[in-house]
Amino acid sequence: MTPDAVREHIFTVDTVPLKYGHGALRELGHDLKALNARRIALFTDRHLAALEHVAIAREAIARAGLDVVVYDAVTVEPTDASFRDAAAFAADGAFDGFISIGGGSVMDTCKAANLYATHPDDFLAYVNAPMGQGKPVPGPLKPHLACPTTCGTGSEMTATAIFDFVSETVKTGIAHRFLKPTRAVVDPTTTYTLPVGVVCSTGLDVLTHAIESWTARDFRSRDYPTDPSLRPPYQGSNPWSDIGSMRAIELGGRYLERAYADPADHEARDALMFASTLAGMAFGNAGVHIPHAMSYAVAGQNHRYVAAGYEDDKPMVPHGISVVVNAPAAFRFTASTSPERHLEAARGLGADTRNMTPEHGGAALADRLAEIMRNTGCPNGIGALGYTESDIPALVQGAAQQQRLLVQAPRAPSEADLAGLFRDALRYW
Amino acid sequence: MTPDAVREHIFTVDTVPLKYGHGALRELGHDLKALNARRIALFTDRHLAALEHVAIAREAIARAGLDVVVYDAVTVEPTDASFRDAAAFAADGAFDGFISIGGGSVMDTCKAANLYATHPDDFLAYVNAPMGQGKPVPGPLKPHLACPTTCGTGSEMTATAIFDFVSETVKTGIAHRFLKPTRAVVDPTTTYTLPVGVVCSTGLDVLTHAIESWTARDFRSRDYPTDPSLRPPYQGSNPWSDIGSMRAIELGGRYLERAYADPADHEARDALMFASTLAGMAFGNAGVHIPHAMSYAVAGQNHRYVAAGYEDDKPMVPHGISVVVNAPAAFRFTASTSPERHLEAARGLGADTRNMTPEHGGAALADRLAEIMRNTGCPNGIGALGYTESDIPALVQGAAQQQRLLVQAPRAPSEADLAGLFRDALRYW
Ligand SMILES: NC(=O)c1ccc[n+]([C@@H]2O[C@H](COP(=O)([O-])OP(=O)(O)OC[C@H]3O[C@@H](n4cnc5c(N)ncnc54)[C@H](O)[C@@H]3O)[C@@H](O)[C@H]2O)c1
Ligand SMILES: NC(=O)c1ccc[n+]([C@@H]2O[C@H](COP(=O)([O-])OP(=O)(O)OC[C@H]3O[C@@H](n4cnc5c(N)ncnc54)[C@H](O)[C@@H]3O)[C@@H](O)[C@H]2O)c1
Ligand SMILES: [Fe+2]
Ligand SMILES: [Fe+2]
Repeated sequence: MTPDAVREHIFTVDTVPLKYGHGALRELGHDLKALNARRIALFTDRHLAALEHVAIAREAIARAGLDVVVYDAVTVEPTDASFRDAAAFAADGAFDGFISIGGGSVMDTCKAANLYATHPDDFLAYVNAPMGQGKPVPGPLKPHLACPTTCGTGSEMTATAIFDFVSETVKTGIAHRFLKPTRAVVDPTTTYTLPVGVVCSTGLDVLTHAIESWTARDFRSRDYPTDPSLRPPYQGSNPWSDIGSMRAIELGGRYLERAYADPADHEARDALMFASTLAGMAFGNAGVHIPHAMSYAVAGQNHRYVAAGYEDDKPMVPHGISVVVNAPAAFRFTASTSPERHLEAARGLGADTRNMTPEHGGAALADRLAEIMRNTGCPNGIGALGYTESDIPALVQGAAQQQRLLVQAPRAPSEADLAGLFRDALRYW
Repeated sequence: MTPDAVREHIFTVDTVPLKYGHGALRELGHDLKALNARRIALFTDRHLAALEHVAIAREAIARAGLDVVVYDAVTVEPTDASFRDAAAFAADGAFDGFISIGGGSVMDTCKAANLYATHPDDFLAYVNAPMGQGKPVPGPLKPHLACPTTCGTGSEMTATAIFDFVSETVKTGIAHRFLKPTRAVVDPTTTYTLPVGVVCSTGLDVLTHAIESWTARDFRSRDYPTDPSLRPPYQGSNPWSDIGSMRAIELGGRYLERAYADPADHEARDALMFASTLAGMAFGNAGVHIPHAMSYAVAGQNHRYVAAGYEDDKPMVPHGISVVVNAPAAFRFTASTSPERHLEAARGLGADTRNMTPEHGGAALADRLAEIMRNTGCPNGIGALGYTESDIPALVQGAAQQQRLLVQAPRAPSEADLAGLFRDALRYW
């Protein structure tokens, strides 16, 4: 490969600095002081506000002599309306530091609130095209310490904030490198209070992040950018993201079924939290593709489902479930582009691949994924969420809008392909 | 493990942002502009100054309309005198950005020059105790883009600058997180001009970095710090560093012998360069221990040796050789602390461990390492460098001063232990 080749030949690694370990939330006061933040907005949701994690964090912040104001009105699976509400709170408070303690819903809401408070603009200005204007964020945001409590979206490592655009019946988001938190503070003990249903839905999200970034189009398949600053933040799979992706696949394959079988298995939850962070690093660098693109339609068009572990929230399809229900179908579809990689992913997940050759890769991966879904209480395909054949055209329309994600696939699906994928995803066992 | 445990239970990950790939040096002008640097000091050595890599970098910088002044008087294996000379150059030039293009000798010299130019002080002020005063660096340095051209020290990822303290006949250094480069720019094509002897000596350094950070004491074996800011930069092995360490071990085990056998094997050099970066990330986070501590005596007390590939430099023991000659002995010594880990390292290096149990770990690792050394033209122990039994007391004195590194070992050696280690290292086959 010559340096003047037309194809990309460079990748970059810009991870969010990480603090990881049991009790990490107890050091938040110190971390905020190191950032020179004095007046802190703490974002969380109403479930978490009643749990000890938030109390521990507040105590640590108070001990450091800092002011903190709590916003606990985050909506689980946020919407355009709930993002706006949070942004108004942030704008009014004259904060110089942000902390988010929660799952992806909380961390994403905090990213958006920090953005609109720091660089005020019309709500749609920063939203991804075609729904919004996709305007680049003009400059850095205020310091933000992101503390995940699910295992989990990996949002603490990414440059994205996702919301349900209710009037459009589709999920979309805001994506810009300035949305990356200043530091991730990951305390795996926070997962011990998660309902097992949430451990599984978020753990299935992690598995899918890892397999999607592992199978994302090769970074060298893009054109070399005319200017290095035009290199996209989601670069495609590369030798660095591959390492984190594979490790997260292995951890998910080993521990997710254990976490379901025994809700008191802290070792399994610890491992899944670490996998979540690793997968966040990997997909925050390489990107995700078809299962996530499909999920934004699956979640956006169904507000009736109540998943195990989410009984207290408004009816909706939790993110991890909305993603993984598409995954076996998607990986059967992408397998032809890199059969060996798909077989390696199956092996990483724990499938016995000793007697298999690469052409078994897609089936082996899909089968092992479906087995894990089945063993962790996951709905059996989009059919189990209430979708039928007649919903497929609308689902295809929703997914087809996610070009930002679909171009990351090793093989970009046409609308006819998407219809086939949703049909395949109706039921797995 | 409770959060109040007396033992450490937290680790942090603060990697140097990375740009990696063929032709990465061609984008240096863009990278400097993004840092708002206008007047650049470019550090290199006289060999490299005559090679195309430096020309490519200068061309890229000139194209961006920036001023650049080249300093090519870096000493291969720098000394206190050569660090001072570089610092004087940096202080006189009123630079607002630094680039280093070279091996560890160049990158370390640039770190030191940037330090003394930005925060002037007595030379010994920042040098590690007990040789120097170990004064903390008072604040950030000027932007520094580190571009390694050996595979390699990993210095582009670390907070350390090493030099030969000639009057003390020992190597020592400066270590502080502000010494970390602003960004690493790693172009593996730079390794294609390396003499094969340098590929091997630096590749053996990489292997040892990876195995040392893999076997370094567990981060949880330290006491929990009384204040989070007192957490040491080299934290001990942890789940994050383990991933990079193991991958670097695997790459080194697979490609180092190939690189020796065929100097035109670019795939092998590419892989070793990536291993070098990964090992730098890992040991820059976890730390190294006994082989490096011993190396500073081995290199500091011998200025007569001329290694293959280093015929144009002053006589000395190249860093990678000075390290790896101690490694089989050191890992035999540490094996009892974690036999399974040592066996995994042997397996990662390519040893056939199928019929082995953990108690074979130390021997398997030492044997496979010695085999790689033998297959890559490495001297057969410190005896082949000219040391004899009668030199051991002086070597022990030199190594025993490296407490900063020795405390990172999973089992800290006494002076009697060090004597045994040097004796074991006299000859391996
Ligand atoms: N930004 C990104 O990169 C990214 C990636 C994937 C998904 N997402 C988004 O993240 C959101 C989903 O986030 P999530 O899956 O982390 O879940 P979540 O934040 O929606 O939380 C799920 C449920 O678990 C509860 N909960 C969270 N932590 C708890 C704890 N420690 N103990 C007890 N209960 C707890 C919450 O109150 C909620 O009821 C979606 O909106 C999704 O689109 C973002
Ligand atoms: N800072 C750290 O973390 C760290 C870690 C380990 C070692 N070190 C230090 O780094 C130094 C050793 O660095 P090194 O092993 O990278 O080698 P080096 O910088 O000493 O270079 C070795 C030789 O290779 C030549 N060379 C370098 N790149 C070349 C290229 N691309 N083509 C042709 N020739 C090339 C040099 O001119 C020199 O002759 C030692 O001083 C050691 O103590 C530092
Ligand atoms: Fe997700
Ligand atoms: Fe080294």
